[in-house]
Amino acid sequence: MDIYNEAINLHKQLKGKIYTGLRGEVTPDTLKLFYSPGVGGASKYAQNDKSKLREVSWTNNLVAVISDGTAVLGLGDIGPEGAMPVMEGKAMLFKHFADIDAVPIVLNIHTADEIVAVIKAISPSFGGINLEDIAAPKCFEIEERLKAELDIPVMHDDQHGTAIVVLAGLMNSMKVTGKKLSDCKIVLVGAGAAGVAVAKLIHQYANPQIVVVDSEGIIEPTRKDLTAEKVMLMSFSQSEAKGSLSDALKDADIFIGLSKGGLLTEEMVKTMAKNPIIFALANPEPEIMPDIAKSAGALIVATGRSDFPNQVNNSLGFPGIFRGALDHGVKKITDEHKLAAAKALADLVPNPTADKIIPNPFDDGIVEAVANTIR
Amino acid sequence: MDIYNEAINLHKQLKGKIYTGLRGEVTPDTLKLFYSPGVGGASKYAQNDKSKLREVSWTNNLVAVISDGTAVLGLGDIGPEGAMPVMEGKAMLFKHFADIDAVPIVLNIHTADEIVAVIKAISPSFGGINLEDIAAPKCFEIEERLKAELDIPVMHDDQHGTAIVVLAGLMNSMKVTGKKLSDCKIVLVGAGAAGVAVAKLIHQYANPQIVVVDSEGIIEPTRKDLTAEKVMLMSFSQSEAKGSLSDALKDADIFIGLSKGGLLTEEMVKTMAKNPIIFALANPEPEIMPDIAKSAGALIVATGRSDFPNQVNNSLGFPGIFRGALDHGVKKITDEHKLAAAKALADLVPNPTADKIIPNPFDDGIVEAVANTIR
Repeated sequence: MDIYNEAINLHKQLKGKIYTGLRGEVTPDTLKLFYSPGVGGASKYAQNDKSKLREVSWTNNLVAVISDGTAVLGLGDIGPEGAMPVMEGKAMLFKHFADIDAVPIVLNIHTADEIVAVIKAISPSFGGINLEDIAAPKCFEIEERLKAELDIPVMHDDQHGTAIVVLAGLMNSMKVTGKKLSDCKIVLVGAGAAGVAVAKLIHQYANPQIVVVDSEGIIEPTRKDLTAEKVMLMSFSQSEAKGSLSDALKDADIFIGLSKGGLLTEEMVKTMAKNPIIFALANPEPEIMPDIAKSAGALIVATGRSDFPNQVNNSLGFPGIFRGALDHGVKKITDEHKLAAAKALADLVPNPTADKIIPNPFDDGIVEAVANTIR
Repeated sequence: MDIYNEAINLHKQLKGKIYTGLRGEVTPDTLKLFYSPGVGGASKYAQNDKSKLREVSWTNNLVAVISDGTAVLGLGDIGPEGAMPVMEGKAMLFKHFADIDAVPIVLNIHTADEIVAVIKAISPSFGGINLEDIAAPKCFEIEERLKAELDIPVMHDDQHGTAIVVLAGLMNSMKVTGKKLSDCKIVLVGAGAAGVAVAKLIHQYANPQIVVVDSEGIIEPTRKDLTAEKVMLMSFSQSEAKGSLSDALKDADIFIGLSKGGLLTEEMVKTMAKNPIIFALANPEPEIMPDIAKSAGALIVATGRSDFPNQVNNSLGFPGIFRGALDHGVKKITDEHKLAAAKALADLVPNPTADKIIPNPFDDGIVEAVANTIR
C-alpha cells in the first residue's frame, strides 16, 4: 500500500487528528462557574480587553491555522475541503511540538479583500494567526494587511517559516564550506510565496547575489510579466543576466529550489562553482535527488524529505515562533525576529557537517531556543 | 467571595476551559502520514466533497459556537471579547454532555449581511453551526439565511434550544394539572430571540391563545413599532386585547417570562386563573422568585436556575440535537425535529409532579433520547 492510501486509512480510523478537551470537570457545582451565571463575571472582566480575555480564556494559547486551499503542498488549488486535512495536520504539529492549541479554519472565499475581512472578523477568537497554503501573489497582500490591521501575531508560514529554516541551513553550510554567504552567487528557482520570502530574508541577512528564476526563466528587466514582488526580487540579482535556469546556474555557489520535482539536472550541477550547495526543497519530489546531486559534485544537499539528511522542515520554525509570540506578548513577527530565529536554529547544531546542517524537528530544545528569540 | 469573582478566579487558574488534544501520536513515522507527504492522499480524497472530508477529518464531530456578542446572557451587548468566556463555556458543555468537539468563534462584525458572509466563508471548517447570543431581530434573518444557504445544520440555540425545553416543561405541566395546552391562555413576556421561538413552537404544537408582551406592553394591532416577527406573534393572541402585562395576565393559565428579573408581582399572579403555571426564566434573577409565586397560588414554578426545582436549562436540548444531527447526517433542524425533541425530553420524566416537570441535565440518557429524534 502506498503512503497516500496508508494515510487515508489512518485518517479514517482515527476520524481526524485533533479533538477538544476540557480543562476542568463539569459538575452541577462547577457548571455555575464555567457557565451561567458565574461566567458573566469572566465576561465582564474581559469585555473590550483582549489582554484580560487571555487571562480567562483559551485565547492565551490559541492559534488559528487558516487557508483558502489555493496552494496546498504539491497539490495546488484543491479548495477548502481538500485543504482541511493539511490544516488539521498543522494544528496537530502546533500541539505536539509547542503545546499550542490550534484550530484549522478553511475558507471558501478567495479574493484578498474577502480573506482579510473574514480573518479580521473572527480574529478576537484567537491569540495568533498562521496563514497557510494561500497562493501568491495574493498571500503577500493578505499577510501585510492583516499584520497592519490586527494586534495579534500573523505569519504566513509558507513564506517566513521556510525562509527561517533555509537561512539557518545556509548559515551552517557556510561553516562547513568556509565560504561567506555575502560572497556567494545564489540561484533561487520558484518565485511563489516561499521563494519570495527566502530571497528577501537572505538578502537582508547577507546581501549576496541572488538570481531568481521562475517558470519563464530568469527574472530580469526586459520581462513584461512581473508582479511587484518579482520586480523587487530583480534588484537582488546584481546583474542584467537573462535566460534559462541553465544560464543562471553557471558558476553559482548555491542552488535553492522551491519549485518542481526533477527540474535540476546532473549536467546543470556540473556547471556550478566547485563544491556547490544544493537545497532541492520541492515536495514530495525534490528538484534533484540527493545521490545524483552528490555524484555531480554537490558538497551539501538538503531536501524537504525526512528520508535524506538535512531535512528543511517548517516544523523547526513555526512552533517556536508562535510559542515565543504567545508567551512574550509579541504582536508582530519582524525581520529581526526571523533573523534571530534562524541563528538560534543554526546554533543548535554545534559542529555542522555536510550531512548535518540543521536540527531534526524531533530533537530536544528546538521550540525553546526559537521561542526565546521572539520577544 | 461572590460567584462572579469565584468564576473569574477559576478561569484564571485554568487559563480557559478547553484545549486541543491529539487523536494519534506524532512520531517521525506517523508524521509522514498525518502531514506531508501522506496527508496529500487524504486531501485528494476529500477534495470538493464534504462527506468524504468528514471521514478523514474532525469535522464529523465538530460544531462552531458563534456569537457577535450583542445579546450575551443577562449582560446584553458586551462585544466579542466579553462573549468569548460564554462561548468557550458552551463549547465545554457540548463536549461534556454530547462528546462533541466545539470551537468558540466570536465576531467583531455586527450586521446580518456581514455575519452571514463570514459564517458562510468559514463553514467548510465545521460539521454544524450553533449560533449564540446574537441580538434580535437580526438573529432571525441570520439563521434563516444560513439554513437556506448552507448544507450543514445551523441552529440559534437561544431560540430553538429554549423553545424545545420550555415546550417539554409545558407538556409535563399539562400532565400534572390535567389541563389541555390548547385550552390554556398563555402570557409570554419578552419578544426577543427566545420569546419569539417559544411562542412559535407552542403555537405549532397546540395553537393555544398566546398573548405576547414586550417592554411597551401587549403586542397588538394599534402598535406602530412592531417588527415582522412581532406582527407574526400578534396573530397568536386570538384577541384584540391592549394594555400592560397586568391587563394581559387576568385569567391566564400560564405565564412564560423570557424578559427581566422581578417583573412579575405577587398581585399579578393572584389575578391569573386558578393553579397557574409560572415559567420565570429570566437569568440570573427570575421574573418572580418561586416562593413568592407559590404563596400567590402558583401550582408549578420553573426558573432558569439550578437552585430551585424545574430548571429550564438549554443543556437539555442542544447537546442531543447536534449529536443527532451529526450522527444521522441531518442537514436542517426542522420544526418536526423540535417537537419530537420536546416530547422525548418530556417523556424522560415518567411521572411528572409539580416539582419535577423536566429532567436534570446531569441525568443519564438525555442526549441519547434527544439525538434519537433528530433523523
